[in-house]
Amino acid sequence: MTFKPTDYLPYDFANRRHIGPSPEEMTQMLDTVGAKSLDALIDDTLPGGIRMKGGLDFGKAMSEREVLEHMRKTASKNKVLTSLIGQGYHGTVTPPAIQRNILENPAWYTAYTPYQPEISQGRLEALLNFQTMISDLTGLEVANASLLDEATACAEAMTMAQRMSKAKVSAFFVDHDCHPQNIAVMKTRAAPLGIEIIVGDPDKMEADKVFGAIFQYPGTYGHVRDFTSHIAALHENKGVGIISADPLSLTLLKEPGEMGADIAVGTTQRFGVPEGYGGPHAAYMACKDSMKRSMPGRIVGVSIDAHGNRAYRLSLQTREQHIRREKATSNVCTAQALLAVMASMYAVFHGPKGLKAIAQRIHRKTVRLAEGLKQAGFDVRPATFFDTITVEVGPLQSAVMKSAVEEGVNLRKVGDTKVGITLDERSKPVTIEAVWRAFGIDRADKDYTPHYHMPEKLIRQTEYLTHPIFHMNRAETEMMRYMRRLADRDLALDRAMIPLGSCTMKLNSAAEMMPVSWREFSLMHPFVPDNQALGYKEMIEDLSSKLCDITGYDAISMQPNSGAQGEYAGLLTISAYHRANGEGHRNICLIPMSAHGTNPASAQMVGWKVVPIKSADNGDIDLDDFRAKAAQHAENLAGCMITYPSTHGVFEETVTEVTKITHEHGGQVYIDGANMNAMVGLSRPGDLGGDVSHLNLHKTFCIPHGGGGPGMGPIGVKEHLIAHLPGHPNDGGSAVSAAPYGSPSLLPISWAYCLMMGGEGLTQATRVAILNANYIAKRLEGAYDVLYKGPSGRVAHECIIDVRPFDESAGVTVDDIAKRLIDCGFHAPTMSWPVAGTLMVEPTESENKAELDRFCDAMLAIRAEIDAIEKGDMPRENNPLKNAPHTVEDLVLEWGDRPYTREQGCFPPGAFRVDKYWPPVNRVDNVHGDRNLICTCPPMEDYAEAAE
Amino acid sequence: MTFKPTDYLPYDFANRRHIGPSPEEMTQMLDTVGAKSLDALIDDTLPGGIRMKGGLDFGKAMSEREVLEHMRKTASKNKVLTSLIGQGYHGTVTPPAIQRNILENPAWYTAYTPYQPEISQGRLEALLNFQTMISDLTGLEVANASLLDEATACAEAMTMAQRMSKAKVSAFFVDHDCHPQNIAVMKTRAAPLGIEIIVGDPDKMEADKVFGAIFQYPGTYGHVRDFTSHIAALHENKGVGIISADPLSLTLLKEPGEMGADIAVGTTQRFGVPEGYGGPHAAYMACKDSMKRSMPGRIVGVSIDAHGNRAYRLSLQTREQHIRREKATSNVCTAQALLAVMASMYAVFHGPKGLKAIAQRIHRKTVRLAEGLKQAGFDVRPATFFDTITVEVGPLQSAVMKSAVEEGVNLRKVGDTKVGITLDERSKPVTIEAVWRAFGIDRADKDYTPHYHMPEKLIRQTEYLTHPIFHMNRAETEMMRYMRRLADRDLALDRAMIPLGSCTMKLNSAAEMMPVSWREFSLMHPFVPDNQALGYKEMIEDLSSKLCDITGYDAISMQPNSGAQGEYAGLLTISAYHRANGEGHRNICLIPMSAHGTNPASAQMVGWKVVPIKSADNGDIDLDDFRAKAAQHAENLAGCMITYPSTHGVFEETVTEVTKITHEHGGQVYIDGANMNAMVGLSRPGDLGGDVSHLNLHKTFCIPHGGGGPGMGPIGVKEHLIAHLPGHPNDGGSAVSAAPYGSPSLLPISWAYCLMMGGEGLTQATRVAILNANYIAKRLEGAYDVLYKGPSGRVAHECIIDVRPFDESAGVTVDDIAKRLIDCGFHAPTMSWPVAGTLMVEPTESENKAELDRFCDAMLAIRAEIDAIEKGDMPRENNPLKNAPHTVEDLVLEWGDRPYTREQGCFPPGAFRVDKYWPPVNRVDNVHGDRNLICTCPPMEDYAEAAE
Repeated sequence: MTFKPTDYLPYDFANRRHIGPSPEEMTQMLDTVGAKSLDALIDDTLPGGIRMKGGLDFGKAMSEREVLEHMRKTASKNKVLTSLIGQGYHGTVTPPAIQRNILENPAWYTAYTPYQPEISQGRLEALLNFQTMISDLTGLEVANASLLDEATACAEAMTMAQRMSKAKVSAFFVDHDCHPQNIAVMKTRAAPLGIEIIVGDPDKMEADKVFGAIFQYPGTYGHVRDFTSHIAALHENKGVGIISADPLSLTLLKEPGEMGADIAVGTTQRFGVPEGYGGPHAAYMACKDSMKRSMPGRIVGVSIDAHGNRAYRLSLQTREQHIRREKATSNVCTAQALLAVMASMYAVFHGPKGLKAIAQRIHRKTVRLAEGLKQAGFDVRPATFFDTITVEVGPLQSAVMKSAVEEGVNLRKVGDTKVGITLDERSKPVTIEAVWRAFGIDRADKDYTPHYHMPEKLIRQTEYLTHPIFHMNRAETEMMRYMRRLADRDLALDRAMIPLGSCTMKLNSAAEMMPVSWREFSLMHPFVPDNQALGYKEMIEDLSSKLCDITGYDAISMQPNSGAQGEYAGLLTISAYHRANGEGHRNICLIPMSAHGTNPASAQMVGWKVVPIKSADNGDIDLDDFRAKAAQHAENLAGCMITYPSTHGVFEETVTEVTKITHEHGGQVYIDGANMNAMVGLSRPGDLGGDVSHLNLHKTFCIPHGGGGPGMGPIGVKEHLIAHLPGHPNDGGSAVSAAPYGSPSLLPISWAYCLMMGGEGLTQATRVAILNANYIAKRLEGAYDVLYKGPSGRVAHECIIDVRPFDESAGVTVDDIAKRLIDCGFHAPTMSWPVAGTLMVEPTESENKAELDRFCDAMLAIRAEIDAIEKGDMPRENNPLKNAPHTVEDLVLEWGDRPYTREQGCFPPGAFRVDKYWPPVNRVDNVHGDRNLICTCPPMEDYAEAAE
Repeated sequence: MTFKPTDYLPYDFANRRHIGPSPEEMTQMLDTVGAKSLDALIDDTLPGGIRMKGGLDFGKAMSEREVLEHMRKTASKNKVLTSLIGQGYHGTVTPPAIQRNILENPAWYTAYTPYQPEISQGRLEALLNFQTMISDLTGLEVANASLLDEATACAEAMTMAQRMSKAKVSAFFVDHDCHPQNIAVMKTRAAPLGIEIIVGDPDKMEADKVFGAIFQYPGTYGHVRDFTSHIAALHENKGVGIISADPLSLTLLKEPGEMGADIAVGTTQRFGVPEGYGGPHAAYMACKDSMKRSMPGRIVGVSIDAHGNRAYRLSLQTREQHIRREKATSNVCTAQALLAVMASMYAVFHGPKGLKAIAQRIHRKTVRLAEGLKQAGFDVRPATFFDTITVEVGPLQSAVMKSAVEEGVNLRKVGDTKVGITLDERSKPVTIEAVWRAFGIDRADKDYTPHYHMPEKLIRQTEYLTHPIFHMNRAETEMMRYMRRLADRDLALDRAMIPLGSCTMKLNSAAEMMPVSWREFSLMHPFVPDNQALGYKEMIEDLSSKLCDITGYDAISMQPNSGAQGEYAGLLTISAYHRANGEGHRNICLIPMSAHGTNPASAQMVGWKVVPIKSADNGDIDLDDFRAKAAQHAENLAGCMITYPSTHGVFEETVTEVTKITHEHGGQVYIDGANMNAMVGLSRPGDLGGDVSHLNLHKTFCIPHGGGGPGMGPIGVKEHLIAHLPGHPNDGGSAVSAAPYGSPSLLPISWAYCLMMGGEGLTQATRVAILNANYIAKRLEGAYDVLYKGPSGRVAHECIIDVRPFDESAGVTVDDIAKRLIDCGFHAPTMSWPVAGTLMVEPTESENKAELDRFCDAMLAIRAEIDAIEKGDMPRENNPLKNAPHTVEDLVLEWGDRPYTREQGCFPPGAFRVDKYWPPVNRVDNVHGDRNLICTCPPMEDYAEAAE
């Protein structure tokens, strides 16, 4: 009997995993949007001129199992040795409870940045714990909720010092004991801003010649020294003192605040976050209270909600790139929320005594290691240290390092005659013995008599982590429940669509996430010898080649570890290209008014001047204005920055004209890849005339948003720019991130996505993303105006809903609608960007018709509520929109004079009945929060009150 | 400078991970209970005579990292080959989304059996999906919510047939094509019950000589045959027809119901549950509607709640061992809920078309494999098959099998001249080619023309999985949210204490859970050659040796895969011992009245007669009665079954007297290990005179309850019984489970627990468990009577709270209190067992003082509410207890005439305010559910109604 083959392919074989709507649903949806077929819709939406030739072909798409097996094979090419290289990266033990319940839990990793505080109280609390921890450890009043990595944090501190300092000089002093990658990134950042970097011995610093200085603590070669007098000297000269400090060492050592430091930075990687070949990890920054309004990055603050209950929120949002825009010297946008949460939970779990015990054990072992070396006659420096020593070995450097590798240990090459060794939480007696053997010492690590090799005056005298949150019982049950409770307070992708325009909140599939936890990817120091990282190499090369195919570029740099970093790196590359061509004077950058706020900030950071370009009435770039400005600045035109499809959600046919004009006037074209999810497989920035683009791997390529980071922003460039891409941070020069490949432990996610989708699947994802957006636009037609459509009446992968008229007609703001959507069980769309008073909706391909309908039903019901207000059936100040979001407290306490029932208030269309998401707080009071800024955990008594 | 070492050990170094209260809290608690120290409390509680000599010493406790590294090393000794052995175990692909969101998610794995339906709606729905899937695939009306494994399911079907059949014969026919382990377990179970097993060719079955028959479908060697006529013949003779069917094959093959079968059994392992060297997996049983009240195991049914909304619950609870007790022929207690949930989610994810496609692919590959062998001249049987073929190789059997292993493939040894090959979801073209090479065939698997090698009349004609739940879109986002929604409906250990007496709901730590997912443990067929499972061997030996130290026994059998199975295996061992001594007539078993219901059922299953023993007034065994009964039955005394400490939660000093009396009269002593959490490190059953005990690894040794299974019930025995332990199921004889080591993929959990706690840590856990129970007893003193204390006024690790008086005084039942505790955010304690109308509370060592206090506060507040009713301040029929649990619906809809506020109703003391757990339904109507039994998913329309 002959078998009739099924035409059916299960979820794992037709990329249905990533595609929300079923084929049947797509047919219905095409019917709704009035398109004959998906092909027809795409033809309507994407002008032929901008379509790519042929399709993407990556061979046969892999199944989940195939991809995991393939990646196992790749991973096994990485050799996991014990790396004692130090230099800001340390072995650490991730508590399994944190790994399972945070890192591997979609409730945490699929969350968005907590801009909507009512549905983000869980991660806001975790981040507040992080800030409190940093503030306590550094001895400084205010800490932010993390930065990208220690090196960029140093650079941010430098530019912050420049902004703060009243010294009339443009030089900045850098301790020669700073980690090389920190120095490299600071140099990169300094050059375009006209900052002169002076690297030297702090004792020889001329405080009157600099606006600030940064010191490494402990130093990269192990020294622990007191910078009190250096900072005092700086202060005398109106300079700013910065210390880049290892937070674990601060459990034993005198804190930066006590030395008078104005700013402290560093990385919390060793607080339970695996090294991951360089990232992602959460860097930190803390500063004196007086400087907080100049601090880059996000800060969580404490405020109250509409009922006066405590509520957390992001504070001081409107700083730097928002306020100063073209004048900004920071484009920080993403943080490393997920990693900061992990680090904070590590501190919560261990508590101050536990952290101190860990630090003491490390120090004790380092002392034993050093003693053994000294007794064997080696010259060990420095005399006092925390966890790092440097050994003089003369011409035997290579021999010792090789011998160590044979013992399974990586040491650090220091200069040409020295070897560095840094111990960590994972170091054991056998580790010490292996190092000794590498030095030819046959000795057992047995003398456990504890000694301190720290200067007595540098022993920390103050308490830290005194808040009750750090004084739990250290029992996993308690900890597990705390993590669960916080997770439950938040609304993430694992419960509902997050229709955030420009943010591409799509599925982060479990299969893609799994390899991130594998030890072959996670337990790798970024500076291991290349031959130990062949698995990473293979992955990076293959993923790069696929991204080149997708974008039409010729090479990819994985170094930028956020989208904004990608922009910056891309513009730096263009700058370097101009300089190499003897055209270093080119410094004009054309940017449309509707650009992401990071664009002008990035341009400013490379020393360019921003010339804004108008939008035409239809939202497109005003071509006449563009042409005129390009011509006007032809002499100095560095380039333009455009977004495609535009931030208005439209595929502008004129894009090739824009790139042509730019090139004609000697400029280079930067195409922002934020909207790449609308292009993959259909159109390539490289074909449209782009010279550089960054890709948000955390948008289009499935890296989860992590509640506000990690991000990953590699750049693609055309052939002629390859020579000018960022360099290796250890080689100095043009590095933009601390680690050569940015945050490479995230790359398995994007790689697995490409491998499992194949070219065809990736293209289908794009097509369905466009279908989903058009479906929403169509269903909301009549109720809301959709701003900006293409000539054929189609939107791209997102659409802008105009809610401005309701302010006048009903007193309803975009904020009211956003909060009312919480009652319906949704995260709000992007608010007031790129057009104030509007909502930008991006459903992505991952959402099925049922979820899209649930959202549309909610939006239409909200429109009906607005209607009732407009008609006077409902008062303007007391209605479900103004009172949104509704909490259980509203139900329990007096419902009062609300002119609608509890049921109407709490269960609007869209809301699940049984599975309702309840926000833990009512609407958060932003003004109160900014007026009464509190950025560390509130005292115990407050908790007691709240519990009542 | 000399370093002052900290005396502080972080969570990972002092077993604080598992110990809820901090040292400070313990001091306070000891103060409350009036004990000078923990030592003093333990001395009060455990009489000196029963204390073990010396302490447990397993060497230094390992840290989490050390244990994971140690287990990695052990795991690496298992060789993961491609096993094509079949015999009921198959390679399968666990969808990563299911692995991450179910198997590795504490919300699912820490849940208890859904006896409290209001807080179990999520897993009840998932299990209802499982039942619907089984019912559809088998074509039978009713399915249960899983059984332990296929072999025990066969045995259960056999005894069920015996109960159902009106045929006056005692023989049971077993298809010789049944899997060997199924035959072995049926033989074990049959013997003590006087059932004669006839193994033979179904075509030669004499239907009038048997009360029932079981057929394997497809047969163990690959045959697919139609059993319609055989079953018809059975029916003519009042016999019962049973088919043991592979559910995946049923997507293509005519279903058992269509053949007239009365019962179908089988395993759902290949629905995404890793083989795990034998388990755990969910077996299934389905039967005709008319037989449902005889079906063993749990059945989920549909009922309504107090508001008339749909609600799920366990139906038909009071069957077999509850009703028939000493007459029971089933002691099934645990199911395999977690694995059944996984299997059901696999079906939900793939849908009927996906499952069919998977089956077709497997079949097509098997056809290609067979064709290749035939074309090379091999004799391949049978002519028609699904996934299994048998090849005649004459004297070359060993050579071919060895050659296959060299190709990375395990084949099955069939007889002395044949080789069996079973393909599965993981088989690829390269797998087929490797098999061919093992047979000396050099050939590429290229001909993909699909053929069927199945008899046309056996092709399935009916639809299955037609319910909408199996017709989702196959998109992971949708699936992930479905799993999250169900998880959120349930209250598990990850949110609150589950103070279930006798169930020991303690921490299942993340570190312990991790190795379960490792491929070296999960991807192992149970019948691989021993030299491929050296890692398992090492683990089993080391864990066994530790369990021997803990219990005072001389050997452990890991075969029983539940506590009840352990009891049964233990009694079988005793039986075999008596027979070996020529005392096979001994068949009297003394069991105290307060015993677990499984005890008498287990005794009955080994053919013993149960003689109940009275309790003295203080709850102890009535020693006089025991002595009298032992003497009276001395001639035939097989043994006694006792629980220690007693089910009343007291360490009876008389235990050694009881064991002595039993031995004096020639009996053996079975000590039930259910309460082992009160003994570890303090007292050993083997020292008290026990000859056998089972250990509930899912209670004392941290295997999670999984929402109602898996369980694991190994037995420890004294030297003289070792020879009589269960044998290997492939060798026939005395096997009790399908796999030689039961559910060995769970053993890493218990092993890691022992390694990380060390002897000292394990002992401390016991001590703190006792402290916690005494603390609760003390805090509730005055408000409630605590039944049964030891002579010094202490309880053991649990306490019984008497709530019987309130029935009369206030009309409040134990059920009302249990439901009111849900409002407080708690799972109820064990209800009405061992004493009707009481609550038995076991906090375990994992709970900290704060959680204990939260529980006590809730209980005291409930007492105050009862008080108000007693005083007439609150009506008897309309009060917070009678209306409990309160849902959001109560808040939203009319609160009505309730004489208390919404706040009092929903936020009693104990309830979290912000993090409140809301039950998704009001109190479930049990009577309605039993009267209107529905055990498959309700039709679509019902869903539509509910959504309105």
